[in-house]
Amino acid sequence: MKSSDTEHYYAMIMAGGGGTRLWPLSRQTRPKQMLSLFDDRTLFQTSVQRLTGLFPPERIYVVTVKDQAAELHAQAPEIPAENFLPEPQPRGTASVVGLAAVAIRQRDPQAVMAVLTSDHFIGNEELFRSLLKSAFDLAMEGYLVTLGIEPTFPATGFGYVQRGELLGTYRQLPAYRVKRFKEKPNEDQARAMLAAGDHSWNSGMFVWRVDHILAEFKHQMPELAAALAQIEPTWGTPLRMDALERVWPGLKTETIDYGIMENASQVAVIPASGLGWNDVGSWDSLFEVLPGDENGNIIMGGEHVGLDTQKSLVYMSQEHRLIVTIGVEDLVVVDTGDVLLVCHKDQAQRVRQVVNQLKQQGKNYL
Amino acid sequence: MKSSDTEHYYAMIMAGGGGTRLWPLSRQTRPKQMLSLFDDRTLFQTSVQRLTGLFPPERIYVVTVKDQAAELHAQAPEIPAENFLPEPQPRGTASVVGLAAVAIRQRDPQAVMAVLTSDHFIGNEELFRSLLKSAFDLAMEGYLVTLGIEPTFPATGFGYVQRGELLGTYRQLPAYRVKRFKEKPNEDQARAMLAAGDHSWNSGMFVWRVDHILAEFKHQMPELAAALAQIEPTWGTPLRMDALERVWPGLKTETIDYGIMENASQVAVIPASGLGWNDVGSWDSLFEVLPGDENGNIIMGGEHVGLDTQKSLVYMSQEHRLIVTIGVEDLVVVDTGDVLLVCHKDQAQRVRQVVNQLKQQGKNYL
Repeated sequence: MKSSDTEHYYAMIMAGGGGTRLWPLSRQTRPKQMLSLFDDRTLFQTSVQRLTGLFPPERIYVVTVKDQAAELHAQAPEIPAENFLPEPQPRGTASVVGLAAVAIRQRDPQAVMAVLTSDHFIGNEELFRSLLKSAFDLAMEGYLVTLGIEPTFPATGFGYVQRGELLGTYRQLPAYRVKRFKEKPNEDQARAMLAAGDHSWNSGMFVWRVDHILAEFKHQMPELAAALAQIEPTWGTPLRMDALERVWPGLKTETIDYGIMENASQVAVIPASGLGWNDVGSWDSLFEVLPGDENGNIIMGGEHVGLDTQKSLVYMSQEHRLIVTIGVEDLVVVDTGDVLLVCHKDQAQRVRQVVNQLKQQGKNYL
Repeated sequence: MKSSDTEHYYAMIMAGGGGTRLWPLSRQTRPKQMLSLFDDRTLFQTSVQRLTGLFPPERIYVVTVKDQAAELHAQAPEIPAENFLPEPQPRGTASVVGLAAVAIRQRDPQAVMAVLTSDHFIGNEELFRSLLKSAFDLAMEGYLVTLGIEPTFPATGFGYVQRGELLGTYRQLPAYRVKRFKEKPNEDQARAMLAAGDHSWNSGMFVWRVDHILAEFKHQMPELAAALAQIEPTWGTPLRMDALERVWPGLKTETIDYGIMENASQVAVIPASGLGWNDVGSWDSLFEVLPGDENGNIIMGGEHVGLDTQKSLVYMSQEHRLIVTIGVEDLVVVDTGDVLLVCHKDQAQRVRQVVNQLKQQGKNYL
């Protein structure tokens, strides 16, 4: 990158999720991005440190929910406090991107921003940085760029992006015009897209010029754009939180994919393969990311004795506690002290159902 | 029973086991007979209370290991303290029976004693009491009586007793001469015995005249008889513990079955069916005794949420803790705070293997 360009490059990390998909480890007050699953860093810290060399900390923004801002700042103290943007209430990724975009434009009208996730695993960080650089190049040419992930199975839990014409090669990575966004498909549709070979998973990571995305907001989501216009002038003044809290509750909850990307023009995708990307969307996804022992078991914490135990995951948050497994296969055992989850690997997605049930019954453990 | 007979009737409960078959709930210091599995009474308490109406408490003896005597007395305070006979070290059931026999003979030379277990489940207590009465009648006639259990499957974990000629009917229960004792068989042998229809499981419960069994000891186990002869005169004197502790370490460890019953003459069996007897010998045995819910699950303690959970047992020693099971079948989950066991029902016997492994490694949790 030329320094004249890169000094306008910003990153915005979405860290507002209250995900319950790794429940009972993830909780309302300890969402997935605050967990340390792969090393002693939280997923959020890894997401920040992955950007080293691409953005100085003062050009990294974090959008999160109010309650979590202080904790996230403690985890990444190199990022200035004013770069943590607190959502008063969750209103979907469209609102979040819009808020960051106006905050960044207010500071740098020529800004180009990356929208990044805080709770995914990326195995090949070098490739990730290359991909981001290519995406910035493409965004500078006026595209809304989405980072695509090469699909490895007919996932029904992700959105898909269909490639159109080849736009060119950016730092050795081919970029394509986006033909179509497809929200979470059913299994048949997923199989067909995988077979067609011209679809990527939608990673939820994007790069675009701030003026460009805000023009799209004005065009496609005029109500949100109007709300943001009320907030923008207060930015950097003591009135900012007042404005946010006045405007935010009235916003419609919408995703950036549905609200903007599906109908935007000039949308491009750079498909990434070999990124080692994983959304860590449920306990079974850890088997794709973490190396198992000789029996395919993943043992995290605690003391474990296994007889005839295969392809199972054991997570134990307490020390000085013994877990014994005998004659089990494809089992997930997660013990957080107050909750014990014992779940067949193939049904790990149903953890959400339990969380919803507990919520409805007004129970604790959430 | 004529009161003239019954005043010579005694019961001896063997409560010395340090069983680990229900580990991690049963421990060295909390053997199976001290657990409350079926109601708020311990198995030992149930074993004592089952005798109500048959023996006054002062004619109930309990043989146990030294460390557990105080706790057992606390659980059955109606039994006089001097009736708790402490084994200095475990030396098998032959020594235990011999000790109780000399203690009882010292008090009542005409005594007839029942040898009973402390850690089994008996569903039909009325029938059990009838069976005991029949066995006392038969013992009065000079038989060593064993209580047989009608086998319901080809168990390899129990000894068997083969019936010979019918000796008569005692209070409507037929009694047979014992043709043969067979120690724990292999699976083929077990199937053959079940098919033959003339075998009972050896319940480990016996009734005999004290003078009769002690004569057998003198004949078949002269060393043990000699050792007991050293202890007997000290009984009821302050020297009793000294004598016990001097003599006991030199005893050979032997079972009453192998040491006496297999080669005794005048051995009879009263086969019991419908007793609802269960040795509670491993976690899976609880499924035979405890009623499951509509999915065949047995939930003991804790708060449980199950999705797609069948024929599983969940035991939780702590309150205020949630167990969630999803997509599991035939699973045993036992949480005792310091240990969590997750085990396929069919492999519940292997808990012993884990205990042995921990023992060898000098670990705690035993």
